[in-house]
Amino acid sequence: MGSTERIRNVAKRVAKWHRAGHQMVVVPSAMSGETNRLLALAKELEPARPGQAYSRELDQLAATGEQASSALLAIALQAEGLEAVSFSGWQVPIRTNSAYTKARIESIDHQRIQAELATGKVVIITGFQGVDAAGNVTTLGRGGSDTSAVAVAAAIKAEECLIYTDVDGVYTTDPRVVPEARRLEKVSFEEMLEMASMGSKVLQIRSVEFAGKYRVPIRVLSSFTDWDIDLTEEARSGTLITFEDDESMEQAVVSGIAFNRDEAKITVLGVPDTPGIAYQILGAVADGNVEVDVIIQNISKDGKTDFSFTVHRNDLAKTLDLLKTHVAPKLGAAEVVGDARICKVSIVGIGMRSHVGVASRMFRCLSEEGINIQMISTSEIKTSVVIDEKYMELAVRSLHREFDLDQPADTLAVTRG
Amino acid sequence: MGSTERIRNVAKRVAKWHRAGHQMVVVPSAMSGETNRLLALAKELEPARPGQAYSRELDQLAATGEQASSALLAIALQAEGLEAVSFSGWQVPIRTNSAYTKARIESIDHQRIQAELATGKVVIITGFQGVDAAGNVTTLGRGGSDTSAVAVAAAIKAEECLIYTDVDGVYTTDPRVVPEARRLEKVSFEEMLEMASMGSKVLQIRSVEFAGKYRVPIRVLSSFTDWDIDLTEEARSGTLITFEDDESMEQAVVSGIAFNRDEAKITVLGVPDTPGIAYQILGAVADGNVEVDVIIQNISKDGKTDFSFTVHRNDLAKTLDLLKTHVAPKLGAAEVVGDARICKVSIVGIGMRSHVGVASRMFRCLSEEGINIQMISTSEIKTSVVIDEKYMELAVRSLHREFDLDQPADTLAVTRG
Repeated sequence: MGSTERIRNVAKRVAKWHRAGHQMVVVPSAMSGETNRLLALAKELEPARPGQAYSRELDQLAATGEQASSALLAIALQAEGLEAVSFSGWQVPIRTNSAYTKARIESIDHQRIQAELATGKVVIITGFQGVDAAGNVTTLGRGGSDTSAVAVAAAIKAEECLIYTDVDGVYTTDPRVVPEARRLEKVSFEEMLEMASMGSKVLQIRSVEFAGKYRVPIRVLSSFTDWDIDLTEEARSGTLITFEDDESMEQAVVSGIAFNRDEAKITVLGVPDTPGIAYQILGAVADGNVEVDVIIQNISKDGKTDFSFTVHRNDLAKTLDLLKTHVAPKLGAAEVVGDARICKVSIVGIGMRSHVGVASRMFRCLSEEGINIQMISTSEIKTSVVIDEKYMELAVRSLHREFDLDQPADTLAVTRG
Repeated sequence: MGSTERIRNVAKRVAKWHRAGHQMVVVPSAMSGETNRLLALAKELEPARPGQAYSRELDQLAATGEQASSALLAIALQAEGLEAVSFSGWQVPIRTNSAYTKARIESIDHQRIQAELATGKVVIITGFQGVDAAGNVTTLGRGGSDTSAVAVAAAIKAEECLIYTDVDGVYTTDPRVVPEARRLEKVSFEEMLEMASMGSKVLQIRSVEFAGKYRVPIRVLSSFTDWDIDLTEEARSGTLITFEDDESMEQAVVSGIAFNRDEAKITVLGVPDTPGIAYQILGAVADGNVEVDVIIQNISKDGKTDFSFTVHRNDLAKTLDLLKTHVAPKLGAAEVVGDARICKVSIVGIGMRSHVGVASRMFRCLSEEGINIQMISTSEIKTSVVIDEKYMELAVRSLHREFDLDQPADTLAVTRG
């Protein structure tokens, strides 16, 4: 939420839904820029070796942003003539574990929320935060408000969880790369999860996990439309993220193309192919607190193998250093090489479960464009390739066309097996 | 607290005390301007008829200011190499009643504070706020941080409660009016209470009441001295507000001169002198939510009397209107007149209890200056007069000299009876 003007618009939108007979629970984020402002103050005072105690205070500090915006939204709703009350995470309570700055929600007590709803009030609950068993304030990390909203929706068994964002829905791919990209009317939790994990920044990945687990339909829609847009129209806008078994799901093989260039590839060359190699390499990397994404072990030749994996680009130098200094000498590996100039492109779709040949159609398409595939990784509803970064736009556009994503799916002659 | 630079200075000061072997609990106010900023946002969104629900959200909002400054101070202390933890009112908890925006502290649980102190931590507790029995956030009203500090000090039975303010102590009177005004080294709770109620703005009056009730010595001292001032010197600076039976109390008859020009005088003339008059006049005023200070009923003449009292200047017009329209006609009063050009000057001192003639010495002094006294009101340790506003400075300076307040009290040949 931005200025008070924006808060007033949110209030008018909520009031519109409420007057149409819906019970409303609202989970606002902080006012625009507020969380950054608070964390910048903390940064100025940061100790030389920030520890757990520092993280605790960061959460105590950052949680005030949503507490303030929630109270202001309650006031704006009262100005609209509605009854409204705001609760901080600890007042609900929203119980989390004690992992400061990246806590996970463990439970939500719905009694107080239900009691206030029953009196006709709009209930506002601070996003992004909770309280641990010892009564410490915790935050869920960036984008945590989405997760809070879905968790609250699950706790109160809401009909639908509307998430107002700065985009008007989920697209077949990034419209900045493919102008023909099309807004999906519906998408399954599983697909959304794969897209989110692939860098599609529409929703925080944990909010989608939560929604899938507790079967809460989410509608992603734009907060930039006028508040007085027709209610029926608004209720049909955006993208509905829902159950795979929903009768009206689009019947496409591939629902979207995801991509990111946040990763770098590391290859350990000439490793003796003995049991425990993967553990010795990746164990050391994990101990260095580096997350690994795609992992490939090539076939063995002359008792030696090559081992490749991708990490976040920010971790490339650190990981190379760690492997060269500590791991390669011990393993007797020939060389360790890194490459930051890569990208990962994925096709995602639940249709892949029941359709053979989807992956090879992807590989053929890329080959026709002369794009060399460096790594391949597959899951049930996703196929990812790592390619040279310079081919990213070309690959995404070609795949988008190959799988007819610029056409509404229900015009395709595809049935599910 | 102002900028992060100021927070860092507070941290250095606290660290200095802590390193000298003191267990420290710190109660910070919000960062400078923050409470006003938040309340201005609320004001922009305020409903047409703000009610109880609005006040609840105001407190939910305003409480974030101290929550943020407390977390930042904890971080700054960690940067100083100390262990520090911050708690919001509800985390202690500091229990209050439910009177939003002006709540009163009912109890403080000292267990969590003591447990953290025992581990060697500096404990930071948000001032100005608490939580009611239903778990709603409450605030104590402006200056409430002083009250929080004293209440916490009482709960943990602190040796002394240091209150850092923008003045370096309590003075015999306002140095802007009397340049010879002298800082008091000690003053009793009772005297401080009378001075505070008379407009001496050093401490919030409720913090002094609390300190007196729970016998917590308060030291008022300046937050503008360097943080690295010598500890012994700092421990002796400012003014100690302490018990009347403290052996080392100054033995003056009068400790200070207080004054204010916030009041206005109202006189109802020619009222039939029958029982219940005072109630009929003041009851109506109280129903109008106007607070009354000095009250005088003159002697009766021909079965008629005049009834005078003072109210806050802001309430003058409203009160006059109320009396003229509703009360005077019913009583058959001759006239209702108001006068905003008055001031109240008081001498305060516990020595007045045991010394006769102090009040008449005051009246003589004023008469020698040609100042006419319009109203007189006395209590055990205070005598107040209402005079024409234009004589205020003259009266205060003359009384300051009359009672030798420019001289340290222990050089006076005064003993207590």
